[in-house]
Amino acid sequence: MPTVKAYAATSPTGPLTPTTIERRDPGPNDVLIDIKFAGICHSDIHTVRGDWGPQSYPLAPGHEIAGIVTAVGHAVTRHAVGDRVGVGCMVNSCGECIHCRAGEEQYCLAGHTGTYGATDRDGTITQGGYSTHIVVSENFVVSIPDGLALDVAAPLLCAGITTYSPLRHWGAGPGKKVAVVGMGGLGHMGVKLAAAMGAEVTVLSQTLNKRDDGLSLGAQRYFATGDPETFTRLAGSFDLIISTISAAVDINAYLKLLSLNGTLVLVGAPPEALPVQAFSLSMGRRSFAGSTIGGIRETQDMLNFCAEHGLGADIEVISAGQINEAYERVLASDVRYRFVIDTATL
Amino acid sequence: MPTVKAYAATSPTGPLTPTTIERRDPGPNDVLIDIKFAGICHSDIHTVRGDWGPQSYPLAPGHEIAGIVTAVGHAVTRHAVGDRVGVGCMVNSCGECIHCRAGEEQYCLAGHTGTYGATDRDGTITQGGYSTHIVVSENFVVSIPDGLALDVAAPLLCAGITTYSPLRHWGAGPGKKVAVVGMGGLGHMGVKLAAAMGAEVTVLSQTLNKRDDGLSLGAQRYFATGDPETFTRLAGSFDLIISTISAAVDINAYLKLLSLNGTLVLVGAPPEALPVQAFSLSMGRRSFAGSTIGGIRETQDMLNFCAEHGLGADIEVISAGQINEAYERVLASDVRYRFVIDTATL
Repeated sequence: MPTVKAYAATSPTGPLTPTTIERRDPGPNDVLIDIKFAGICHSDIHTVRGDWGPQSYPLAPGHEIAGIVTAVGHAVTRHAVGDRVGVGCMVNSCGECIHCRAGEEQYCLAGHTGTYGATDRDGTITQGGYSTHIVVSENFVVSIPDGLALDVAAPLLCAGITTYSPLRHWGAGPGKKVAVVGMGGLGHMGVKLAAAMGAEVTVLSQTLNKRDDGLSLGAQRYFATGDPETFTRLAGSFDLIISTISAAVDINAYLKLLSLNGTLVLVGAPPEALPVQAFSLSMGRRSFAGSTIGGIRETQDMLNFCAEHGLGADIEVISAGQINEAYERVLASDVRYRFVIDTATL
Repeated sequence: MPTVKAYAATSPTGPLTPTTIERRDPGPNDVLIDIKFAGICHSDIHTVRGDWGPQSYPLAPGHEIAGIVTAVGHAVTRHAVGDRVGVGCMVNSCGECIHCRAGEEQYCLAGHTGTYGATDRDGTITQGGYSTHIVVSENFVVSIPDGLALDVAAPLLCAGITTYSPLRHWGAGPGKKVAVVGMGGLGHMGVKLAAAMGAEVTVLSQTLNKRDDGLSLGAQRYFATGDPETFTRLAGSFDLIISTISAAVDINAYLKLLSLNGTLVLVGAPPEALPVQAFSLSMGRRSFAGSTIGGIRETQDMLNFCAEHGLGADIEVISAGQINEAYERVLASDVRYRFVIDTATL
């Protein structure tokens, strides 16, 4: 049972601190990964602080993991020592249900196993990527194509797939008008991906502060949601809206921005229920939908797509000692657009 | 300007009473219809009572109209004197917007003109089908196929198309599991239509009172929503749920009945906003949608489909003098499944 270095929360209220955690001995189907970079996702903060339920501590978060394979179990066929690989939000699922068999492990009927803070199928609690090494079943390890640097690839494993999957599912592409709500870690990837798919992209952000960035990432238009005029001007405009924000908003105002048959997809998770007026949906046969990450096969497709289009996340690489400060900056939306931990500093 | 007999509300609180109303002289594109039957829709009651906003009185409601053409304007090509025809919830639209041109007049960007209580494009207030005659542009008049009796066809013009359209749009058919929520005027048509399309149909009704009816109309299963066990038992079961009820319900409980990629469509219009939890949608990539009647071309398709499958509404024919009593019975859900006024009794 290898003991490895990590950065972990020891309580819901304290800072994250250096520690060690145990990884399992790699089994026949496991891959041992030398983690090089781990992205910081807003979910990490919610989870370690207990916002989404009580946790077992110490807890090392991190589900945007990029590294190099350093050992493989004897039955592993998909990956080899030296391969550049990634691990995202899931490390296990039942493998047998209709959704797992269809490659949609994120919707496993038995519940997929989150990369950290989840009870794995062997009863252990999973520990995430703020760590030097991780052991993961090869079925949940994806290949990072050569064209993608590991640091900018790490955030693709959550922020990338979470926006890629609904964009693909709802047909973003040429001729489609897509709005991305929120210009954070997810939002900036949503803009890049939708633009690379050929859609006409509009950003809806609280202010115009990040307008220049949005346009340079591929958006054609950028509007402030803090300006009520935006909602009048853009009424009935979009085929697809991807909302990446977790704040409670007047969802009816956003639904009315959809054109006939349009869909608004939540990929952020506002904790409060959002009151929906029937007429916001029926007057335009609109849909209000939700989507969660993506399957493993689709995550690989997303990485291949990003490599092909030269897309990575816009990142700020930090050392382990800056994690707590980075958390405060994430909470203040003061990051363009993802912090990535250089795990050599652990 | 012909004066014709009608039954109308004279205030939001009083009963409907016999009166006369004015119809316009038929213009070149108009059809004069001798109304034979008019269905009573729950919307009629909401509208005349001012639940959906103030009205101009006297107001003759009725948007489920079946009758015989008795005169046509000189430019009319689609209908001829003696034809069996119907008029539904709309009598006009701009005819020029992208939705009108696509035959989706119900989503006219300038707003379609409702059959009663609406300001028509000439500035007059429309009057509905509780009347002996109506004058309507031929573009909003559909043909009732010979195989369909006029009395059972009348309710198809609202209850039929309102359920047919979303069933078609979301692909009800063989291999699809469809639930219909509510066994009223809309619900009973939803069951008949979905079953005729080849879907596997389940009824979700407050009680099991109408179970025998539901099964004989084509449902394979029938569950009481008053029993909490129903929601556990049917979790993740349906590809499509058509909700015909206007009551405020725990919409999250219903959303969780959808399988992966399933859609719940509101065709009823609960007046209160329905609070939706993000996880009810994202955990299964589910959609919450709304739909409003259907276009004129689709209404004709629906009537043809009904004729082909021998489907009409289950009705109770009443005389004009029974309208107020019928309203009370509709409010008490005491009708199987639609009241239809014999306009010969006006």
